[in-house]
Amino acid sequence: MNHYEYEDLLIGHKEQFEVTVTDEMLDVFRNITGDMNPFHMDDEFAKRYGFTSHAAFGMLTASFLSTLAGMYLPGEKSIIQNTEIKFMKPVYPGETLIISGEVAEKNDAYRVIRIKTAMKNGAGEKVLRGSMQIGFLTEKED
Amino acid sequence: MNHYEYEDLLIGHKEQFEVTVTDEMLDVFRNITGDMNPFHMDDEFAKRYGFTSHAAFGMLTASFLSTLAGMYLPGEKSIIQNTEIKFMKPVYPGETLIISGEVAEKNDAYRVIRIKTAMKNGAGEKVLRGSMQIGFLTEKED
Repeated sequence: MNHYEYEDLLIGHKEQFEVTVTDEMLDVFRNITGDMNPFHMDDEFAKRYGFTSHAAFGMLTASFLSTLAGMYLPGEKSIIQNTEIKFMKPVYPGETLIISGEVAEKNDAYRVIRIKTAMKNGAGEKVLRGSMQIGFLTEKED
Repeated sequence: MNHYEYEDLLIGHKEQFEVTVTDEMLDVFRNITGDMNPFHMDDEFAKRYGFTSHAAFGMLTASFLSTLAGMYLPGEKSIIQNTEIKFMKPVYPGETLIISGEVAEKNDAYRVIRIKTAMKNGAGEKVLRGSMQIGFLTEKED
């Protein structure tokens, strides 16, 4: 886990990691959320609408932004304040994603950063892009 | 599960449901994402930074937007195209959230809707607000 403070991070700082999306993840996500939509489990249903097979929940893919912020950029002190996410392409179980973030803005007055994010599949296609505004945990005085 | 088509939904149409966020959900989310940030498991850590206890992952709370779209509004035919999410207050394990969505815009040319979303805790405080642009699955011609 990284421990970057606001001062440590310069515009252009990049972090990335890989995740393979599995059917087990889809099952667990379905159990947590109660989202039983057939698009995420029924191949015949998904094919009827022009997809290769059942696909990952967009919000499951988006969940790796939690990991990006909380583990990598900035890591321990991360507090995500807001996020914008655009889903570009379906993600199918078995696909490995490269999840990346880059410091795009710093706001010295509020001590918040804006991270540009992207996720790419094995074919190099962008499946998600977005941004997150992230603040830093600060110790409270007694 | 609802089965609304684009034509069925008028501006102002609302849906809502409740979810209780549990530590088991946090554990499962941590296992899926690999986000081991102490803010979501270590009470002493969270208190040092002014919080009541360890808090839910923001992206876990946001995951219930998947349920809102995929089960309720519009339900089966839902394809989330993009989303904007603002985290307003921490969510603590044990809290029950009311998750609501309302059709705010319809775009007849693209057959997409924009849903305004909000999540409130038991005290009636808004913990999350945002919006989602949602399209509808359409059968492919052979």
